[in-house]
Amino acid sequence: MTQRFYPTGPDAVENDPCSASGAGYVVGIDIGATNFRVALADTSGAMVAKVSASTVGTSNPELVVRRILDAIDGLLREKAISRAALRAVAAGAPGVTDVNAGIVLATSYLMGWRDVPLRAMLESALGVPAAVDNDVNLAALGESWAGVARGERDFVFLAVGTGVGAGIVLNGALFHSANWTAGEIGYMLVPGADEEPVGRGEPGALEQMVGGEGIRDQWLRAWSREKTSLPKDLTATRIFDHAVAGDGDPMARHILRHSAQALGYAIYNMFVTLSCPLFVLGGSVGLHPAFCSAVQAVLEQRKDRSFPLVRPSAFGPDAQLMGAVHLALKTVEAEQNR
Amino acid sequence: MTQRFYPTGPDAVENDPCSASGAGYVVGIDIGATNFRVALADTSGAMVAKVSASTVGTSNPELVVRRILDAIDGLLREKAISRAALRAVAAGAPGVTDVNAGIVLATSYLMGWRDVPLRAMLESALGVPAAVDNDVNLAALGESWAGVARGERDFVFLAVGTGVGAGIVLNGALFHSANWTAGEIGYMLVPGADEEPVGRGEPGALEQMVGGEGIRDQWLRAWSREKTSLPKDLTATRIFDHAVAGDGDPMARHILRHSAQALGYAIYNMFVTLSCPLFVLGGSVGLHPAFCSAVQAVLEQRKDRSFPLVRPSAFGPDAQLMGAVHLALKTVEAEQNR
Repeated sequence: MTQRFYPTGPDAVENDPCSASGAGYVVGIDIGATNFRVALADTSGAMVAKVSASTVGTSNPELVVRRILDAIDGLLREKAISRAALRAVAAGAPGVTDVNAGIVLATSYLMGWRDVPLRAMLESALGVPAAVDNDVNLAALGESWAGVARGERDFVFLAVGTGVGAGIVLNGALFHSANWTAGEIGYMLVPGADEEPVGRGEPGALEQMVGGEGIRDQWLRAWSREKTSLPKDLTATRIFDHAVAGDGDPMARHILRHSAQALGYAIYNMFVTLSCPLFVLGGSVGLHPAFCSAVQAVLEQRKDRSFPLVRPSAFGPDAQLMGAVHLALKTVEAEQNR
Repeated sequence: MTQRFYPTGPDAVENDPCSASGAGYVVGIDIGATNFRVALADTSGAMVAKVSASTVGTSNPELVVRRILDAIDGLLREKAISRAALRAVAAGAPGVTDVNAGIVLATSYLMGWRDVPLRAMLESALGVPAAVDNDVNLAALGESWAGVARGERDFVFLAVGTGVGAGIVLNGALFHSANWTAGEIGYMLVPGADEEPVGRGEPGALEQMVGGEGIRDQWLRAWSREKTSLPKDLTATRIFDHAVAGDGDPMARHILRHSAQALGYAIYNMFVTLSCPLFVLGGSVGLHPAFCSAVQAVLEQRKDRSFPLVRPSAFGPDAQLMGAVHLALKTVEAEQNR
């Protein structure tokens, strides 16, 4: 079940036990609804090894943490690093996370976590300081540390996958809001949105327009043999592929245009509010090159005033993990400055 | 031309030269497109006197500053306070303002200010430290200091008059953005908005829906003798008056509903992004009780998730001036801590 990754980040280097072992190691963890990923880095930030494992059938927090521990121990063994060299760990969870208390307050129904003291669980299991945050916030942190947002004081990371969320960096720091729910932009109302209020847990108006499931639903509803020769069941990214392959399937092109316009408008709304010059796209839908270009084109149409830059994440699906490593490094620093 | 005001704020007290003269005084200034207002307060924050004067025909910055000086001297004379007792001054201007450099970068065409070094002009004219900011930001500061947003860590002040703008307080401080243009929400795109891009200086999509001129235009365009017995030329606030008087004029009610929905949606968009629990309404349109209630009702329809509170400004048209006084007091403090 365990799948091996190789270092991909700009700072990725092969492990050099001689130079790095003195300074110790940190671990970054990205917990998803159906899998988790673990990265081991030395305290200079250089990636040493990564691993991913499924959590299908194990949404129970204790079981997930036990599997994460096994994965960490596996990586340490593989690199012949002792547990005592571990200095700190940081984890991102896909839900509302109280960073101060170290508690995952709520995740989607798929995981069903409520008030999980993830930081304390990791600290007691590993015996080192831990930190936790929402996964999209960590992705923003990763891009800010070593990705396309390096040096940006104000920017927004947009995770557009099944769900839609934002990690907001203002004045060089993540903006969490008092109740830790900032960035729930999947509920934003843009022109063309369904204005009907939706309940907790239901996909929001913007998510219906640009989220993976939403795009799939649009395709299903619009599909007919007269309009397209493509199959009725297609993922969002496959629809986008067909929109730009050759002359492009007309129905796929329409859906690409429609969803890019909705996200472009949502970005524009955040831009006029916060005046952030950069929006970084991540998530399976957000990372599709045709989608990213189409969103930027929507914003460029508004050039009579000014418009922000849209860039794909430098780390793709690894953005969250990069952020987790960075947060673990910051946790080491904070410990040293105590 | 000079009109006298009386203290209205919660901290307003009669001047007591015995108790306050030792600590000195500050001046807050609110510069508008057609008039300015000056408030004198002691360093405990208690209002001593206020005055307002027209600037029609005097948009030239040097002339405006000279008139402001005359007004300050008039207030000091009236209260038998010497210029030497003045400790600091702060001014709000209706435009993009570089707070660090103390420069008003740009105002609307009506004033036409470009790169006006307002802080230096005030400092050299008065011989005391000065501070400047955008007027809507100062209104937010005023509400935060002594108004309905007292103690709120994150909130937004919305000035809805001829124009539409936001003063955004996050983590207890104004969020300005790197280029000082945060809060230009008049360009926001909500359901029902005109999606056509607009140029610099032109009213934005939201402003067309909820700004004073925009509402007037809607009335003009919709007006016919068959639809209403009211006159063709009505201000936004008069239209709102007619919407709620008696059974309410149907066309006026429609326009009130339509504009309240647009502002409600814009607030909701900021709410899902920043998770601010409070939005304070100011400006001639924003302060209309029927409008404020209708906006809150739009948000309450979205109660399946959560929604923010909408409250009218505690200081009404004086919010900016209260903020200017507060900024002047903070300037005194900063000077003492140097």
